[in-house]
Amino acid sequence: MNVKQFLIGKPFPSSRALHERLDRFRGLAVFASDPISSNAYATEAIMSTLVLLGTSALAGTLPIALVIAALVALVIFCYNQTIYHYPMGGGAYMVTKDNLGPIPSLFAGAALLSDYVMTVAVSVSAGVRALGSAFPEVTFLHDNRAYLGIIVILIITWLNLRGLRESGTIFALPTYAFVGSVLLVIVIGLARYYELFGAPPLPAPQLVETTNEVSSFLLVWLVLRAFAAGCTALTGIEAISDGVQAFREPSAHNAVRTMRTMGLFAMSLFIGISFLATHLHLVPTERESILSQLARTVTGGGPLYFFVQACTMLILVLAANTAYQDFPRLSAFLASDGFLPRWMTLLGDRLVYSRGIGVLALMSSLLIVFFDGDEIRLLPLYALGIFVSFTLSQASMVVLWGKVAKLKPGERLETGVTTLHYEPHVFWKRLPSMIGSVLTGIVLVILAVTKFVQGAWIIVLALPLMVLLFRSIRNHYDYVVKNLRLTGLKPENLRTHADIAIVPASDLHRASLRAIRYAQRLSSDVRVVKVVNDETEAAATRQRWEQWSHFTQHSKLIFLHTDYRDPLDPLVEYIRDVYQQEFAGQLITVVVPEFVPNTFLAHLLHNQTASLLRVMLRGEENVIVIDVPYHLHKQPENP
Amino acid sequence: MNVKQFLIGKPFPSSRALHERLDRFRGLAVFASDPISSNAYATEAIMSTLVLLGTSALAGTLPIALVIAALVALVIFCYNQTIYHYPMGGGAYMVTKDNLGPIPSLFAGAALLSDYVMTVAVSVSAGVRALGSAFPEVTFLHDNRAYLGIIVILIITWLNLRGLRESGTIFALPTYAFVGSVLLVIVIGLARYYELFGAPPLPAPQLVETTNEVSSFLLVWLVLRAFAAGCTALTGIEAISDGVQAFREPSAHNAVRTMRTMGLFAMSLFIGISFLATHLHLVPTERESILSQLARTVTGGGPLYFFVQACTMLILVLAANTAYQDFPRLSAFLASDGFLPRWMTLLGDRLVYSRGIGVLALMSSLLIVFFDGDEIRLLPLYALGIFVSFTLSQASMVVLWGKVAKLKPGERLETGVTTLHYEPHVFWKRLPSMIGSVLTGIVLVILAVTKFVQGAWIIVLALPLMVLLFRSIRNHYDYVVKNLRLTGLKPENLRTHADIAIVPASDLHRASLRAIRYAQRLSSDVRVVKVVNDETEAAATRQRWEQWSHFTQHSKLIFLHTDYRDPLDPLVEYIRDVYQQEFAGQLITVVVPEFVPNTFLAHLLHNQTASLLRVMLRGEENVIVIDVPYHLHKQPENP
Repeated sequence: MNVKQFLIGKPFPSSRALHERLDRFRGLAVFASDPISSNAYATEAIMSTLVLLGTSALAGTLPIALVIAALVALVIFCYNQTIYHYPMGGGAYMVTKDNLGPIPSLFAGAALLSDYVMTVAVSVSAGVRALGSAFPEVTFLHDNRAYLGIIVILIITWLNLRGLRESGTIFALPTYAFVGSVLLVIVIGLARYYELFGAPPLPAPQLVETTNEVSSFLLVWLVLRAFAAGCTALTGIEAISDGVQAFREPSAHNAVRTMRTMGLFAMSLFIGISFLATHLHLVPTERESILSQLARTVTGGGPLYFFVQACTMLILVLAANTAYQDFPRLSAFLASDGFLPRWMTLLGDRLVYSRGIGVLALMSSLLIVFFDGDEIRLLPLYALGIFVSFTLSQASMVVLWGKVAKLKPGERLETGVTTLHYEPHVFWKRLPSMIGSVLTGIVLVILAVTKFVQGAWIIVLALPLMVLLFRSIRNHYDYVVKNLRLTGLKPENLRTHADIAIVPASDLHRASLRAIRYAQRLSSDVRVVKVVNDETEAAATRQRWEQWSHFTQHSKLIFLHTDYRDPLDPLVEYIRDVYQQEFAGQLITVVVPEFVPNTFLAHLLHNQTASLLRVMLRGEENVIVIDVPYHLHKQPENP
Repeated sequence: MNVKQFLIGKPFPSSRALHERLDRFRGLAVFASDPISSNAYATEAIMSTLVLLGTSALAGTLPIALVIAALVALVIFCYNQTIYHYPMGGGAYMVTKDNLGPIPSLFAGAALLSDYVMTVAVSVSAGVRALGSAFPEVTFLHDNRAYLGIIVILIITWLNLRGLRESGTIFALPTYAFVGSVLLVIVIGLARYYELFGAPPLPAPQLVETTNEVSSFLLVWLVLRAFAAGCTALTGIEAISDGVQAFREPSAHNAVRTMRTMGLFAMSLFIGISFLATHLHLVPTERESILSQLARTVTGGGPLYFFVQACTMLILVLAANTAYQDFPRLSAFLASDGFLPRWMTLLGDRLVYSRGIGVLALMSSLLIVFFDGDEIRLLPLYALGIFVSFTLSQASMVVLWGKVAKLKPGERLETGVTTLHYEPHVFWKRLPSMIGSVLTGIVLVILAVTKFVQGAWIIVLALPLMVLLFRSIRNHYDYVVKNLRLTGLKPENLRTHADIAIVPASDLHRASLRAIRYAQRLSSDVRVVKVVNDETEAAATRQRWEQWSHFTQHSKLIFLHTDYRDPLDPLVEYIRDVYQQEFAGQLITVVVPEFVPNTFLAHLLHNQTASLLRVMLRGEENVIVIDVPYHLHKQPENP
């Protein structure tokens, strides 16, 4: 207990739960770290694919980035509508449950949960790479990426278990510092590129132009793959729609404004980085990230460069931290609907969902270990889940607009989660959701197909399995409820208790005597059972029994003979015979004497027969086990 | 259970215990493998020390070997007397207990136990080295000695847990094959050395003669250290005196004859190897053992060489296996005297002391890991224990002869373990024991001093600590007996049972109802206790309670309010209040409802509140815990 308190801190009383709301300034910092931090790897992900067509194909990076930015604008527009209709928090799981039904909503939940795990694994790995890029010569940082990643995860987990709150202004700093410093790099880069304001020209590109001749099918395939790779820039965009309630009133309005600002920031950086990376003829390498190359080239590797790298690392860690808020909250939603273990709904000592935090830390650490802390290899698994939730969420909005279209002016409809009112011009409002759901659906297919072999198959396989798991957990809980409920129970059907108490005893001493006396209170048929190997042992026991018979009157001594050394099997067999044959259909009682040593080490000196017997009897039905403890003391205690 | 049976085999009935006795031929093979196998490293141990004085000092190997051989002869002579006086088995622990008292006997026991662990570690490491020596170019065998050693230990352990018996003739083969083949190498070597029978002369020695000038003190020191190193040749000599009963009648006579033959074999090999190693000018190296070098030089590396290496490996494994017989037997002796955990006296499924085998395997594996499977580094720890037991055993004989000297013709004395009769010429019979005890005592001091820094300090430190451990284990058992015995117990002093039953319940369902009904049988004061966080929760529970009140009549519903999420602490606190204040000095009862899921995985879906509560209540005194299980079924079961 003290170790736990030392690590996690003193428990908080439930009344201390925080209800502080975020203003737009801090709300942006909290929710935008994930999508903005994607800039640390999204451009690179496009280029890593295009370079397969030869270095000259890298020029295609900018057009692809522009298409992705347009997609972002559409998605954000659609989510704004969702926020206005679900001001209590319209995550994909909720919205889909409300409009498309349980199975699609489970897919949305599975997609989001797996994406949160990916967010942690990818962001932490990219953060470690940002550190390594800053110090290319320190091989330790490159050879131990997986270990370093797990250390970072452990630190984030520890802080979250202590009940770290994102509302502190200190958490706003890395996001704004990252946006500011990268924008500065882009501005300097553009100034030097166009040689404006007397800026010194950039160093001449070292690029060796190559072009790989490929079939037109392969060309289309690789361009689509590059586009799919760049779609990681969209991850985390939906987070604000989940957390509308975190904003100050008017919360829906503030959330929408924040989401738009976020999109503007994220896409400015994305297009800026893609523009410069293309025009500076950067080539992706294993050792240094594109963003690092860009900052190094533009700034010449001075203090600004190191500041950018430091901010990159911090915002990536902050992005991982976002998942530590989202994953436990969503899993608690799913758990309270019975689709995940109920214990995920419990708040820990520090008023956080500590078990959800633990599960997230474990899963993301496993991913880092399996993928050796290489976020570029992890990216094909990423973004897929997010597009499942985009598609489902916008399809839900299409259904929702359908319901709104049927309302007459002044009418309202309770859906169970939200309240719908009459609105004019529904057709024109519904159109973007339709386009959005179709487009994100198409992107989803492109992602799944082009990244399938690289790892997307894992997600394609995992999502239905997760939904199956959710269903079977729910079935189990339904089954438990059905088994336990009192409905239909009549007093005349109650089971009777057999008048018997079995006391397994190895010897007659104060501990076993206490158990025998307790059994005598319970039943008129007390059977003290001893397993013996031979007649000598039985005779010696009987002699002691008769010596102390004034304590054990009205109880019978029964010997179970065995030719083996294990006393448990004969005991359990005897008990089974009694409840299955002698007293079939009734509850029987076994009274187990157990003496409790005074120190932990002393336990090692004793056979754990009593504990083992208890474990074995748990499997037997209708057997009630009574533990009669006897604590060791300086002076013997009376039974 | 099935996994265990698959690995270990079906349990044997106790009646199957084997009582087969050994003839001298097989007895020699069984008991002599340990001392004879010492030849694989004893000569090398001397040379490794002497070479520090320069290669020319290696000529001193033979004289040292001769002194050791003389010591062996003396020790064997003394043990022969012990065997005649303790025909029931006169291990150092028994003999010392009978003559010098408990504390010295515990030292003898500790010394022997630690030496058995060393035997396994050293023999297995040397066996792995023999394999490596045969294939010097296979680096895998050299780089993974510790792993290979642990694999060998696992195999030996597995065979012993299955109840492997040494009586099989197949176990005689490696011993005789080793003796035969090494003797053959020695004969060929001598023939080639003296160019007898037209044998081809040996290759001219490649030795570069060097002499390190050292002070005379250092010279004496290193010679003594070399002598001490060679004393590992004496390990295992005492084993026969432990196992006299394993021989056919007349067992003492057969044991003595076998011991002499063993001494003859072991010392012939030892002197032969030392002679040739000196005269062939072999130099110890890391990569190849002296015995391997010798066999390779003499035989030219043909099939005979590989046969010798194979036999070396086998006899070393067999020597390790000997410790698997001795260690569990001796620890069972100590355990039945209460100096080790009692469970070490229990025979396992296959009628072997499986727990002793497990402890031995664990300890020797740890040694191999710590010393990286290098038996030359382990040797300084070895042999020390054996000389403790030699010294104590022979000092015991001196005391025993003193008792015999006081007997008149026809008189007899029962010592508790053995029976002494009048004997003539006691003075002359006592003399060798006196010389033996003094000499082995001196060797013990030499060993401890010269090997102290190299590792003997571990044993010098470990033996008293082990004796302390033995004493404190014995104290604990004495304390338990004193606590549990019924002596002085009067019926009027018996503790009373309080008329109360506390039922912790999270909800009212079939499982908790079953517990409440059981509590109602026991007591007229049934208190159903629920921990609640707020009034809403309490009100909802009270409503359900009233709805089903026809089942719960005569029991009270009690709410424990908490502002934290953990329900266990308030429960335990309430129970503590009840037994410490309300019913001080009486036994109280807690009835815990627990529903048992139908599959193992389903356990993961439930809070283990009931199990945790049980664990926490074990620490509370005078609280009797009743587990009322409810198994899940297709159809609900009646409580």
